[in-house]
Amino acid sequence: MNDTISLLMNHRSVRKFRSDAVTDEQLAAIVAAGQMASSSSNVQAYTVIAVTEPALKTKLAELAGGQAYVEQCPVFLVWCADLYRLKQVTVHHQPGQPSYEGSVENYTVATIDAALAAQNAAVAAESLGLGIVYIGGIRTKIAEVSELLGLPELVYPVFGMCIGVPDQDTGLRPRLPLSGVLHMNGYDQNQTMKAVELYDHTSAEYLKERTGGQRSTPWSEQMAARLTEPARLQLKPFLEQKGFLKQ
Amino acid sequence: MNDTISLLMNHRSVRKFRSDAVTDEQLAAIVAAGQMASSSSNVQAYTVIAVTEPALKTKLAELAGGQAYVEQCPVFLVWCADLYRLKQVTVHHQPGQPSYEGSVENYTVATIDAALAAQNAAVAAESLGLGIVYIGGIRTKIAEVSELLGLPELVYPVFGMCIGVPDQDTGLRPRLPLSGVLHMNGYDQNQTMKAVELYDHTSAEYLKERTGGQRSTPWSEQMAARLTEPARLQLKPFLEQKGFLKQ
Repeated sequence: MNDTISLLMNHRSVRKFRSDAVTDEQLAAIVAAGQMASSSSNVQAYTVIAVTEPALKTKLAELAGGQAYVEQCPVFLVWCADLYRLKQVTVHHQPGQPSYEGSVENYTVATIDAALAAQNAAVAAESLGLGIVYIGGIRTKIAEVSELLGLPELVYPVFGMCIGVPDQDTGLRPRLPLSGVLHMNGYDQNQTMKAVELYDHTSAEYLKERTGGQRSTPWSEQMAARLTEPARLQLKPFLEQKGFLKQ
Repeated sequence: MNDTISLLMNHRSVRKFRSDAVTDEQLAAIVAAGQMASSSSNVQAYTVIAVTEPALKTKLAELAGGQAYVEQCPVFLVWCADLYRLKQVTVHHQPGQPSYEGSVENYTVATIDAALAAQNAAVAAESLGLGIVYIGGIRTKIAEVSELLGLPELVYPVFGMCIGVPDQDTGLRPRLPLSGVLHMNGYDQNQTMKAVELYDHTSAEYLKERTGGQRSTPWSEQMAARLTEPARLQLKPFLEQKGFLKQ
């Protein structure tokens, strides 16, 4: 164990922030650390939009489903997968050539690039004493979010991220046992399902403690409830209209 | 600047490894650090397969397009997006209910979950003095890789990752200027394209130095060449056949 691993092991999402600013220097250091994450063949197919204007944060908080911390955090980052930049340089250098920005491969590459950079940025922010929470809720009204931020074709908002000085101290949320996610030399379906059984106990206990005994739904039931919800089915037509997922 | 940010800023991909083992304790610490990354609504929709069997690594190195370091590294991690686990618990708790594991939203969530965990793991590995390189090449022969590792429906290999003790010292690869990826309060197309112009100089110089003057293709030309390649178009039909991208 070293300091960096201790930092990683102590991550918890923060949903209440003090009014203290995130300085320009901090923001630059956080995003620069994000840039140093690996990128598939160096495509760097992402852009991050730092939202600091209060009116814009208010609107994004609403669009994300009324998540107050999006408004309260001093900086809200919107991490975007960005194939627009690559398409522009391709049109410039190889006019008239067919190109494959619309492939599922490139959608996947750009989404991964955004995620790797964002996670490095999250680690950098936490190393500076700041707290973060990822906001998948910006994909709910994805067309409105994209219009509000002026996103061109071939750019989509993957997730948001609140950053600020934490004003709460939450406990660590237990994860699946290691055996649930780490398999040796091949996928082991039994191992996965046994780990879920163990985790159902852990997750029920954790929820009971957090809600003062009010709730104790095991993880597998929470997941079943989630997977039977027709959530964000608008994503596919939106992405297709923006030029993604064609091939 | 602190030690963790210094570590992040010093990332470079390693493609040559010493024969030293990665211990079980190191592997457990690396994957446990990965698990502490954020996960959308705690779905933890990923599984990582640690490949240590020499014959299996040899085969994967071939399938990845003949990348020798996949064979040489002591541990090759295959990070998989995993909706199989969620589907199983849903069938168990809500038999007969329609469920949405096949949505683009859930594909995106699972891909992001795998990427966030992998990046935390990469940082943890580097903090232990190990080196890593991501291997997107496992998506080229994705059906063969999946069969080799026994991946069930609703699981796909997102990328591989070599881990080991570095046996080379490569320079840092310059990234786009900060202004190329960080925009304030909205997407700025001019800002993006100006940053590309600057980066074309930096990237050409870097390549010239690395190749002893042999090559100096600017980044935008490299990207145009890449985007006009019909790369990995088999991904979409493969994923559809595995149960992804339906809605």
